[in-house]
Amino acid sequence: MTRPLRLGMVGGGEGAYIGNIHRLAARLDGHWQIVAGAFDADPERGRAFALSQGIDPARAYGTWQELVEAEGAREDRVDAVAICTPNFTHYPIAKGLIEAGFDVICEKPLTATLEDAVALEALARDSGRFVGVTYTYSGYPMVHEARVRIAQGKLGAVRTVQVEYPLEWMSKPIEQDGNAQAAWRTDPVRNGRGGSIGDIGTHAYHLAGFVTGLTLESLTADLATFVPGRALDDNAHVMMRYQGGARGLLWSSQVAIGNSNGVRLRVFGDKGALQWFQEQPNELIWTPLDGRVQIIKRGADDLSEDAKARSRTPPGHPEGYLEAFANLYAGFAEAIRARTEGRQPGIVGQNLPLAKDGLKGVAFVEAVVDSHQAENQPWIKPIEV
Amino acid sequence: MTRPLRLGMVGGGEGAYIGNIHRLAARLDGHWQIVAGAFDADPERGRAFALSQGIDPARAYGTWQELVEAEGAREDRVDAVAICTPNFTHYPIAKGLIEAGFDVICEKPLTATLEDAVALEALARDSGRFVGVTYTYSGYPMVHEARVRIAQGKLGAVRTVQVEYPLEWMSKPIEQDGNAQAAWRTDPVRNGRGGSIGDIGTHAYHLAGFVTGLTLESLTADLATFVPGRALDDNAHVMMRYQGGARGLLWSSQVAIGNSNGVRLRVFGDKGALQWFQEQPNELIWTPLDGRVQIIKRGADDLSEDAKARSRTPPGHPEGYLEAFANLYAGFAEAIRARTEGRQPGIVGQNLPLAKDGLKGVAFVEAVVDSHQAENQPWIKPIEV
Amino acid sequence: MTRPLRLGMVGGGEGAYIGNIHRLAARLDGHWQIVAGAFDADPERGRAFALSQGIDPARAYGTWQELVEAEGAREDRVDAVAICTPNFTHYPIAKGLIEAGFDVICEKPLTATLEDAVALEALARDSGRFVGVTYTYSGYPMVHEARVRIAQGKLGAVRTVQVEYPLEWMSKPIEQDGNAQAAWRTDPVRNGRGGSIGDIGTHAYHLAGFVTGLTLESLTADLATFVPGRALDDNAHVMMRYQGGARGLLWSSQVAIGNSNGVRLRVFGDKGALQWFQEQPNELIWTPLDGRVQIIKRGADDLSEDAKARSRTPPGHPEGYLEAFANLYAGFAEAIRARTEGRQPGIVGQNLPLAKDGLKGVAFVEAVVDSHQAENQPWIKPIEV
Amino acid sequence: MTRPLRLGMVGGGEGAYIGNIHRLAARLDGHWQIVAGAFDADPERGRAFALSQGIDPARAYGTWQELVEAEGAREDRVDAVAICTPNFTHYPIAKGLIEAGFDVICEKPLTATLEDAVALEALARDSGRFVGVTYTYSGYPMVHEARVRIAQGKLGAVRTVQVEYPLEWMSKPIEQDGNAQAAWRTDPVRNGRGGSIGDIGTHAYHLAGFVTGLTLESLTADLATFVPGRALDDNAHVMMRYQGGARGLLWSSQVAIGNSNGVRLRVFGDKGALQWFQEQPNELIWTPLDGRVQIIKRGADDLSEDAKARSRTPPGHPEGYLEAFANLYAGFAEAIRARTEGRQPGIVGQNLPLAKDGLKGVAFVEAVVDSHQAENQPWIKPIEV
Ligand SMILES: NC(=O)c1ccc[n+]([C@@H]2O[C@H](COP(=O)([O-])OP(=O)(O)OC[C@H]3O[C@@H](n4cnc5c(N)ncnc54)[C@H](O)[C@@H]3O)[C@@H](O)[C@H]2O)c1
Ligand SMILES: NC(=O)c1ccc[n+]([C@@H]2O[C@H](COP(=O)([O-])OP(=O)(O)OC[C@H]3O[C@@H](n4cnc5c(N)ncnc54)[C@H](O)[C@@H]3O)[C@@H](O)[C@H]2O)c1
Ligand SMILES: NC(=O)c1ccc[n+]([C@@H]2O[C@H](COP(=O)([O-])OP(=O)(O)OC[C@H]3O[C@@H](n4cnc5c(N)ncnc54)[C@H](O)[C@@H]3O)[C@@H](O)[C@H]2O)c1
Ligand SMILES: NC(=O)c1ccc[n+]([C@@H]2O[C@H](COP(=O)([O-])OP(=O)(O)OC[C@H]3O[C@@H](n4cnc5c(N)ncnc54)[C@H](O)[C@@H]3O)[C@@H](O)[C@H]2O)c1
Repeated sequence: MTRPLRLGMVGGGEGAYIGNIHRLAARLDGHWQIVAGAFDADPERGRAFALSQGIDPARAYGTWQELVEAEGAREDRVDAVAICTPNFTHYPIAKGLIEAGFDVICEKPLTATLEDAVALEALARDSGRFVGVTYTYSGYPMVHEARVRIAQGKLGAVRTVQVEYPLEWMSKPIEQDGNAQAAWRTDPVRNGRGGSIGDIGTHAYHLAGFVTGLTLESLTADLATFVPGRALDDNAHVMMRYQGGARGLLWSSQVAIGNSNGVRLRVFGDKGALQWFQEQPNELIWTPLDGRVQIIKRGADDLSEDAKARSRTPPGHPEGYLEAFANLYAGFAEAIRARTEGRQPGIVGQNLPLAKDGLKGVAFVEAVVDSHQAENQPWIKPIEV
Repeated sequence: MTRPLRLGMVGGGEGAYIGNIHRLAARLDGHWQIVAGAFDADPERGRAFALSQGIDPARAYGTWQELVEAEGAREDRVDAVAICTPNFTHYPIAKGLIEAGFDVICEKPLTATLEDAVALEALARDSGRFVGVTYTYSGYPMVHEARVRIAQGKLGAVRTVQVEYPLEWMSKPIEQDGNAQAAWRTDPVRNGRGGSIGDIGTHAYHLAGFVTGLTLESLTADLATFVPGRALDDNAHVMMRYQGGARGLLWSSQVAIGNSNGVRLRVFGDKGALQWFQEQPNELIWTPLDGRVQIIKRGADDLSEDAKARSRTPPGHPEGYLEAFANLYAGFAEAIRARTEGRQPGIVGQNLPLAKDGLKGVAFVEAVVDSHQAENQPWIKPIEV
Repeated sequence: MTRPLRLGMVGGGEGAYIGNIHRLAARLDGHWQIVAGAFDADPERGRAFALSQGIDPARAYGTWQELVEAEGAREDRVDAVAICTPNFTHYPIAKGLIEAGFDVICEKPLTATLEDAVALEALARDSGRFVGVTYTYSGYPMVHEARVRIAQGKLGAVRTVQVEYPLEWMSKPIEQDGNAQAAWRTDPVRNGRGGSIGDIGTHAYHLAGFVTGLTLESLTADLATFVPGRALDDNAHVMMRYQGGARGLLWSSQVAIGNSNGVRLRVFGDKGALQWFQEQPNELIWTPLDGRVQIIKRGADDLSEDAKARSRTPPGHPEGYLEAFANLYAGFAEAIRARTEGRQPGIVGQNLPLAKDGLKGVAFVEAVVDSHQAENQPWIKPIEV
Repeated sequence: MTRPLRLGMVGGGEGAYIGNIHRLAARLDGHWQIVAGAFDADPERGRAFALSQGIDPARAYGTWQELVEAEGAREDRVDAVAICTPNFTHYPIAKGLIEAGFDVICEKPLTATLEDAVALEALARDSGRFVGVTYTYSGYPMVHEARVRIAQGKLGAVRTVQVEYPLEWMSKPIEQDGNAQAAWRTDPVRNGRGGSIGDIGTHAYHLAGFVTGLTLESLTADLATFVPGRALDDNAHVMMRYQGGARGLLWSSQVAIGNSNGVRLRVFGDKGALQWFQEQPNELIWTPLDGRVQIIKRGADDLSEDAKARSRTPPGHPEGYLEAFANLYAGFAEAIRARTEGRQPGIVGQNLPLAKDGLKGVAFVEAVVDSHQAENQPWIKPIEV
């Protein structure tokens, strides 16, 4: 085992949501050690939190700028920094980190505006820095299994893709009740133009493209804001056309009572169909044309190498969200090590969500909002990425 | 028990699909006796089939015109006639029957063209004849339970409706292989302009409106034909806006491998959400805002009278498709008897799908196809019904 | 179509449970017409109920003895009589009917005592009369599919059978609250010695034997009575050994909160396993050794003829409890017609539950109660049938 | 955050199953660092494996005896040692460790013989050393939720408990084909007298007792060996009586095709019932008397503190087997720290499986095998613990 990589973190302080997930995921396989952080918008709180996490006080920073400066000066500087802050800060922070020579793990959506996303993706490309984007659902082994099976032609030509991401937690105006996560998510400045579509629609859009390998050609969208006083959409319907003729239907919602985290993907080809539901992630439902519905279980012997490499336990011993997230972290570690060692990354270091995928997501959101806002919702082509 | 009503039938001969379902459904509760029929496009086959069904040879007709004439002359003439023929024949047959004074039970879609639908609905209205339309899914007790709960305000204001009807049986060009049911369904003349949207999208559309009580305001649609050589859509995506602001998403498909008869309805309000899946029709999934997902079981003590009146067995003793169909037949019998007896119909004779609902369905299909065919799929308002 | 058979009924009057199911089931396929009955323990109520069902007043009998006498004297006498009364009356009524030359359809358990069961089975055998027993669950098409697959060797040698029948409706002492069905079921005289084991354990026991073809060798049992004041078991655990070495585990309960009608059968062989759950009866879960879990759907093309012959609708169009019951009635009609016509019965007239199966069930209950009551619950061999 | 505890490991080398799970679980929350180990029966392989895990070569031991000696001599000696070896070695290794003053985390079953278990439990008690036993399923948050709800009286008096643990992986004689895990599990010397009942029945038995708080009074059992040539049972049926009158049914199997890891627990009280299925561990199915089936989701706001403290992600973001295992490791860390710091352990350090629970499990297996082997399987009382 080579030495664990050193991870720094921006955001993810006390009471924050996703930062803690990053820490759990980074730790699981032993590829990463969390050694530094600017964990909070409030420098004081951020430093205190760092100490509570067992971080060396010298590396408990008040701001990401401090982190950039101080880590840049260390021999044992962090190998990469995870950005776990609200959307509108991703760009400046990522830019600062990349320009200082750090590899970056950035939360989705890549940025709050298309302009920023274009700039960041270009910067990533030009700098040669690693920029991974945590599209969580692409970390699930059975999502990789689905991807591989489609790539192998087991479904034949894909005809239609139904993808949805319904959530219930914002069914009431909780942003007016002091919920921190909801507050910035309903603020166009901090979140970006797309409400549910930007927050979770991007996950659904990435998942569909990741699994099918299809490229979006155009879309038309209908956004709605159901919770009174909310400035952004909390429900989005999108019809999509992919290059080559496949169709897609995407639904994202923050007001879908009964749905905790209902990411669901269904892909129908001319030779078979696949279905995956995030709340039962260890199963892939597969039906060959003229055949029976079958359950492909994570951990089974006949899975692809791609799925196996992302699995830790035998069938029936459920893995979940943290393991999927850990697969991304394992992949990021592998990609970074491979680059350092001048070799091709192994299987978990392949098919990772990168800056380009992040940009595609932001371009998608932009097209959705444009389509909705234009008179009579015309079909829109997202910018080419 | 009053005497069973006498039922005649047009279509539903040897090898036909839905006619047999009508017979089973009509028999189940003892409200109907099947005593006459013109069962086949081929008069000879039709008469032979009638005999095989134990029909009096004098009432085994070669054509529906014969049936109209001969039954019209009998004392014990049929009380109603069920039309179980391909779409394009519904209008002339129904017209002939109504003009001869018969009550009619007509298969969906009401007609193959909007023109015919408008005319038939007007005729039904003017004639005072009963014209029921067999939107099967509105026969299910738990669909009524959903309808009642929404009408009672248990969901609050409806926000979004996701309805889908995926089927797999036409995933291959079986219409070129001698499949009778697929043959006329893929022929614009015999089927009408809407392929999957006309055949099954109408069911989904009716179901959503029936349960929510919402009126469609406008829609935009994307049709696709995936099976080579097919003249009509076999996959349809529709975004809908209802009066009052609710949104809807509708998907119908004849090429969705793995789906036997996957009618699924989800309704999200601001106080709760309901989900119903036709392949597990005895359950309604209900989640109150801030509450737990719960299973409402058919037959349970706390159901609405509307659901109870359409239920024959206790919870856990599954009822299915035939029982739902039988509920329509029980309802049609009740409506006809109530009219005859000059009284209000009892509960099963209420909330039945009638000619007007049939017309709405055809208007929906028309708007979907218009939207799809127009440049850049604009939002379309269906004609007012 | 040959003429419908004429059915008479004993029991199943106003407010009774299973009698109504018999009537629905008998009607569904048109094989039977209900033309006579002694529907109630109270002659007056019985006659009134008969009229409410549209029965000819001349055939609305006050007692089963009247029915025997009057029907015996008619040219158009009933072809068979269904006995839908509490257990302890089955024997005298069935005896009376058989001796008068009627075919009989008898509810389970066949009788309330082993003595009666032995006598009735012998009488059935000697008289040549048809005696069908309504073990409902053997009417389900997918239960036949399971039976055929095992008979074909698809599971290899059966190793273990897990069968259960949990119900919740008697979780409270409802028999003390005027519930008619619970009242006689908790009375050893009217019900027999076995509480839950006699009422529903017999179903489970029959189902396991019916599907596997295995013969019980011995058993040991533990009965419990949880509801205070109840005279019979309301929960039963049974360990079974079948001839040839297979093992079985049987659980019946009337106090299993959350279970509406949870009949579940799992069979494990050395080449594969099957699972069937009555509340989702259209599916059979099949797993071959070293293979994937698969869903075999009722109505699918590759089912056995036995399953197809008992199916009326395509996959995805759920059939349920009434259809299963109707399959028994279709089978009884076929068996009776075949005997009359001197031919072998067609497929639905085969593999029917008969008096012998009824006797086996009563012998099982006897052995269970004996095992439980004996010191230290020894393993017991039921009498040979 | 206090410093991570230092963990040593015996067993769990290259190709071993459970050791790797321990490492993942120990790492997840950052409570433990794996710093030493004697990972393999083969000293050379063990040392090499240690290096591959990034262990300091000085702490890569060839045998557990070396580990005891060398660690005992270090200032920064390991805080605890996890024993991940086959059953028969648990006792000598645990004894050696405890006598040398180490805290121990021991795999189940505690030992291979009752004698060893009695001795080890006594030693644990007398020495004051911490001895945790990894009954994995008691680490699941929803299992704790079930336990708390029963303790709070939400189910009322428990009536019957159905617990099962079916597995399929030993359906064929894989022990004859070089499968290391199966080899020792089918060897009475290395495994102990109970085959499936010892290997997985102990889990089921512990789970039932853990959740209900009930104490076993007596049992009767039927063991079977289905795979030819196997020396131990691969299928076990057990009927149980708990003190106070509740009943239990336990099934364990290693030959249940289709079951990957089908641990399932159902508990029925007089006020409600709970159901938990390990392959969908984030849900607890709850039905109150006269109420509806409801889904209690891990992460929901209204869960017990016990469940919340063992949960890392919101509802809908599945946690699984590793997280459950990590909860045990978090609990062991808390218990050890609390003892060191002379305080009461926090919530995750309570309700842990300890040596006494391990002994109860071995006593259960002993009673099961005794009951089976005795003439006519009498009811047996396990030794009192
Ligand atoms: N991958 C996923 O599935 C997923 C899930 C949830 C959130 N996210 C993304 O993660 C990001 C964070 O979301 P969240 O829900 O955790 O938000 P949050 O509000 O819970 O946490 C944000 C954290 O960032 C800190 N922060 C804000 N500005 C900062 C700054 N300038 N410097 C340092 N720290 C700063 C805050 O103090 C807080 O600790 C968002 O971009 C969101 O879209 C992704
Ligand atoms: N309610 C539902 O869920 C449902 C399901 C299936 C079909 N349908 C509708 O039922 C109708 C029939 O569909 P199907 O699948 O049973 O078709 P089918 O092709 O199986 O049967 C049509 C029958 O009509 C007969 N027929 C045709 N023209 C006739 C005429 N002029 N006179 C007498 N008989 C004639 C044919 O001989 C045949 O027996 C269609 O309108 C269809 O949309 C409804
Ligand atoms: N096959 C199944 O799944 C199933 C289900 C329920 C009941 N059963 C069986 O059906 C039988 C009836 O059960 P139930 O729940 O319907 O009982 P119930 O109490 O609801 O009905 C019994 C009926 O029999 C009538 N009756 C009683 N004695 C009579 C007599 N001497 N003559 C005429 N009528 C008489 C009563 O008036 C009543 O109408 C029982 O043997 C029961 O075990 C079978
Ligand atoms: N908690 C659970 O759910 C669970 C699951 C599986 C196994 N287990 C238990 O874990 C234990 C191990 O099972 P497994 O399936 O991982 O077995 P395994 O055969 O896969 O691994 C055993 C490991 O122990 C090593 N070993 C054997 N003797 C040793 C010794 N004297 N010194 C050092 N190392 C030695 C072997 O080399 C091997 O690496 C068993 O007691 C088993 O019952 C528990």
